[in-house]
Amino acid sequence: MTASTANSYSARQRVAVAGASGRMGRMLIEAILNSQDCELAAALDMAESPAIGTDPCAFLGRPSGLQIESDLRSALSKADCLIDFTRPEGTLEHLAVAAELGVKVVIGTTGFSDEQKAQLAAFAQKTAIVFSPNMSVGVNVTFKLLEMAAKALQNSGYDIEIVEAHHKHKVDAPSGTALKMGEVIAEAQGTNLADRAVYERYGHTGERVENSIGFATVRGGDIVGDHTVLFAGTGDRIEIAHKSSSRAGYAAGSLRAVGYLADKKAGQYDMYDVLNLR
Amino acid sequence: MTASTANSYSARQRVAVAGASGRMGRMLIEAILNSQDCELAAALDMAESPAIGTDPCAFLGRPSGLQIESDLRSALSKADCLIDFTRPEGTLEHLAVAAELGVKVVIGTTGFSDEQKAQLAAFAQKTAIVFSPNMSVGVNVTFKLLEMAAKALQNSGYDIEIVEAHHKHKVDAPSGTALKMGEVIAEAQGTNLADRAVYERYGHTGERVENSIGFATVRGGDIVGDHTVLFAGTGDRIEIAHKSSSRAGYAAGSLRAVGYLADKKAGQYDMYDVLNLR
Amino acid sequence: MTASTANSYSARQRVAVAGASGRMGRMLIEAILNSQDCELAAALDMAESPAIGTDPCAFLGRPSGLQIESDLRSALSKADCLIDFTRPEGTLEHLAVAAELGVKVVIGTTGFSDEQKAQLAAFAQKTAIVFSPNMSVGVNVTFKLLEMAAKALQNSGYDIEIVEAHHKHKVDAPSGTALKMGEVIAEAQGTNLADRAVYERYGHTGERVENSIGFATVRGGDIVGDHTVLFAGTGDRIEIAHKSSSRAGYAAGSLRAVGYLADKKAGQYDMYDVLNLR
Amino acid sequence: MTASTANSYSARQRVAVAGASGRMGRMLIEAILNSQDCELAAALDMAESPAIGTDPCAFLGRPSGLQIESDLRSALSKADCLIDFTRPEGTLEHLAVAAELGVKVVIGTTGFSDEQKAQLAAFAQKTAIVFSPNMSVGVNVTFKLLEMAAKALQNSGYDIEIVEAHHKHKVDAPSGTALKMGEVIAEAQGTNLADRAVYERYGHTGERVENSIGFATVRGGDIVGDHTVLFAGTGDRIEIAHKSSSRAGYAAGSLRAVGYLADKKAGQYDMYDVLNLR
Repeated sequence: MTASTANSYSARQRVAVAGASGRMGRMLIEAILNSQDCELAAALDMAESPAIGTDPCAFLGRPSGLQIESDLRSALSKADCLIDFTRPEGTLEHLAVAAELGVKVVIGTTGFSDEQKAQLAAFAQKTAIVFSPNMSVGVNVTFKLLEMAAKALQNSGYDIEIVEAHHKHKVDAPSGTALKMGEVIAEAQGTNLADRAVYERYGHTGERVENSIGFATVRGGDIVGDHTVLFAGTGDRIEIAHKSSSRAGYAAGSLRAVGYLADKKAGQYDMYDVLNLR
Repeated sequence: MTASTANSYSARQRVAVAGASGRMGRMLIEAILNSQDCELAAALDMAESPAIGTDPCAFLGRPSGLQIESDLRSALSKADCLIDFTRPEGTLEHLAVAAELGVKVVIGTTGFSDEQKAQLAAFAQKTAIVFSPNMSVGVNVTFKLLEMAAKALQNSGYDIEIVEAHHKHKVDAPSGTALKMGEVIAEAQGTNLADRAVYERYGHTGERVENSIGFATVRGGDIVGDHTVLFAGTGDRIEIAHKSSSRAGYAAGSLRAVGYLADKKAGQYDMYDVLNLR
Repeated sequence: MTASTANSYSARQRVAVAGASGRMGRMLIEAILNSQDCELAAALDMAESPAIGTDPCAFLGRPSGLQIESDLRSALSKADCLIDFTRPEGTLEHLAVAAELGVKVVIGTTGFSDEQKAQLAAFAQKTAIVFSPNMSVGVNVTFKLLEMAAKALQNSGYDIEIVEAHHKHKVDAPSGTALKMGEVIAEAQGTNLADRAVYERYGHTGERVENSIGFATVRGGDIVGDHTVLFAGTGDRIEIAHKSSSRAGYAAGSLRAVGYLADKKAGQYDMYDVLNLR
Repeated sequence: MTASTANSYSARQRVAVAGASGRMGRMLIEAILNSQDCELAAALDMAESPAIGTDPCAFLGRPSGLQIESDLRSALSKADCLIDFTRPEGTLEHLAVAAELGVKVVIGTTGFSDEQKAQLAAFAQKTAIVFSPNMSVGVNVTFKLLEMAAKALQNSGYDIEIVEAHHKHKVDAPSGTALKMGEVIAEAQGTNLADRAVYERYGHTGERVENSIGFATVRGGDIVGDHTVLFAGTGDRIEIAHKSSSRAGYAAGSLRAVGYLADKKAGQYDMYDVLNLR
């Protein structure tokens, strides 16, 4: 059974993809071609892209007859929904036209300022939007599992540690996802991560600080992204891990969001809504 | 913070331990001595045990002045609660007297017949009982996490596999806990484990059966008990693991149950009640 | 430092790639373009391939000026070494011409019959060949580690278990690599795998069979290939794991083999020679 | 098959245990009683210990008829070999008498100064001694595996990371065993750990430092000691892990050392000798 089954009652959604010639764009196009609930309606890229005019599915060896185009209004007029993993400025431009045309939008773009988020929210009064810092089904379910475990194990003598591993090119530590995991846990226990986080241990550290949340960072090779949270008690431990093997999870989550929006009017939603995790 | 904190409002519970000279009895006694919310009130063993008359805490080098005794009525009259990890017949005898005296009972005994379970339920109309196939906090929270993950990931293209590892002396496979995990998952998805379980794979198996739940068994050394459930999708996977290092988790869960019963009247409860997991 | 450094004294090797438009061919071409010790000299494919005449590097967006060709003799005359991951019949045809021209060959093709292996060995009297059932550096080093661990831990009370996980489309169990691991271990201990292997466990199995080697199989999602070997004793265990994330390891190993062959005369070698693991 | 099999040709070794009433002493006594190649000849403790005069096997419920004694000369005169996990000063006193009587000694004591090590070496000219910073078979085999992997993967683009996890009471980081692993690896590659170690990562770290060896530390619950070393490349990774579940591994290694010494004259040996790992 595939991601689309849950929405199999709805008609096939016609999807436009922004940034169609980029790595994420291609991942989205491949997922759409393999989906039974969506079809590729249009592929957008910037006017100056050398990909303009080429077939957006050529890289798969499955020519579609479509051409990558830069005319936003023309592209969106063919679509029920736009999936956009580009940059904040571009995404907001796309949103303006989508809101006007009543096209729904799934946004995987990151890095919005507070002001840009306010603009986004305003567009959500005109059309239905899914906007989440992480579009992966697996990551969002993991957040929910951590929330539940943190509540169930509070005051039970379980120490919490977050270990993350990424490729050698990653320039910050811990990862944004690891920090978000810490926040989810701290919040579920009615506390603040800032009061509990221990980011480094070296030399004479003394015994583990009670109620702390420890982070450990591994860097090497081409590891896409592994996160493991330990709840370590006396006599046993629970480990909740999320391991990424590719960006395909972002594409799959985006198509889930497309299906979720199919019967939604205007409004702003996130992956917790899409996955019914509240 | 310890397991007892959540019940720190209540007075110290006076606890009797059945099977006091056995492995689990000693584990319970050690946990009670280390708890701030309980005290050891009496230690029971069978009349023919060579331990009768000896100090139940001697093995810890912490003499208590108590003596292991075989007089059930005398022992229970000193206690608020009995913890019983013995055998079905003995447990039911203990329950009869406890129910008469209004002493609460935490039951970790396994192997009850349906008829014996009915007798147990009858006693629960007279006194408060916690009865669970597994008293470990960690195992019960893991069951709950699996239930949640199974619901959230249903129809999302995630394959479910259960891997368990135990010591070389274990004579059956998969473990009872692994099977219970499978049942929790199957039930959460509105299905039966029997329709989905794949217990063996060897030779030309063909592609993985859609919607199956696979089991894999590892046996070796002194592994106390590791269980890992994979939800393996395209692009990522989630792993939920429970790893036991000793029986201490059963003792800790039992003390949680004692605290839970402190203000309960008659009735039958289980660890999902104790841990507020429903 | 990269794989090529060890051979940096040698001149850049001119490499021809067979099956250039296939998945493995492309992986090889990408690795060659990223290497400092090799250059792409020619790209071969079958005469009927639609890729004939196209640029073999176009899929990377890095046009090379080369064309994929089907003329074996022409292609090999431009190369010091051929890398061939195709099929036994094709590989033997390529070998015949390579042997005649004195071009070295790295063979990643699998499925040779005994007779075909004899033909291959005959060609190795005329040119230098690396032929290994698995070209990955990591897998071969793992085999060597298992051999060493098996010897060091023999007669020490450590139970050996092999757990492997692959994607849902895999049709046999255990994997060929898992079986090979079992053979390496059994042989290192002066025994036969057939006498020791336990492939399935279900129901009342009895205690673990002494000196057995257990296999456990996991199938799900898009797992490329994980293998973990446990040596489980009393008080501790050692785990040796190999985890694949892509086919890149095969390409990297092939380039190591190209470098190894640079100063070799005729003869048949394998990855243990290339990696100096004997 | 047990640790002792390899030495089954030799007569049963009569073993004296120092510090017999301590945690490690008891672990050793239990291992000796369960061994077919050793027998408990004497149990030593300090004169002021309350255990003097009691049966050293009473804690197992297996009375031996022996008494824990403090008379060193008397105890050693009954033994072929002494196992000593006490403190440097005590161990050296024991060694003086053992050397005089020709009794062999297995030393698991840690914390010797350089001067004390010199004294120890002098005694080794009179009797056969095994002295190793870590007596566990598993840990020593793991060191050897790391040495081999470090050599085989040098200059192959594999990044090395060491992750260790210990209980919440541990006061330093990384563990001594993790540091020793780093030293073994660095030395195997002809380098110094000090030049390569990265002990902390937080905030904007930049890309992973080439050729570095990273350490990550986890603290929680009652984890006895897990060490995992990653060799992370492009396309795959190798992981070598050692996981302790109890001190039993130290006892088992000590008995291996006793068997090794059975036919040795004077001299100083370590676990690499005992396990034939050089």
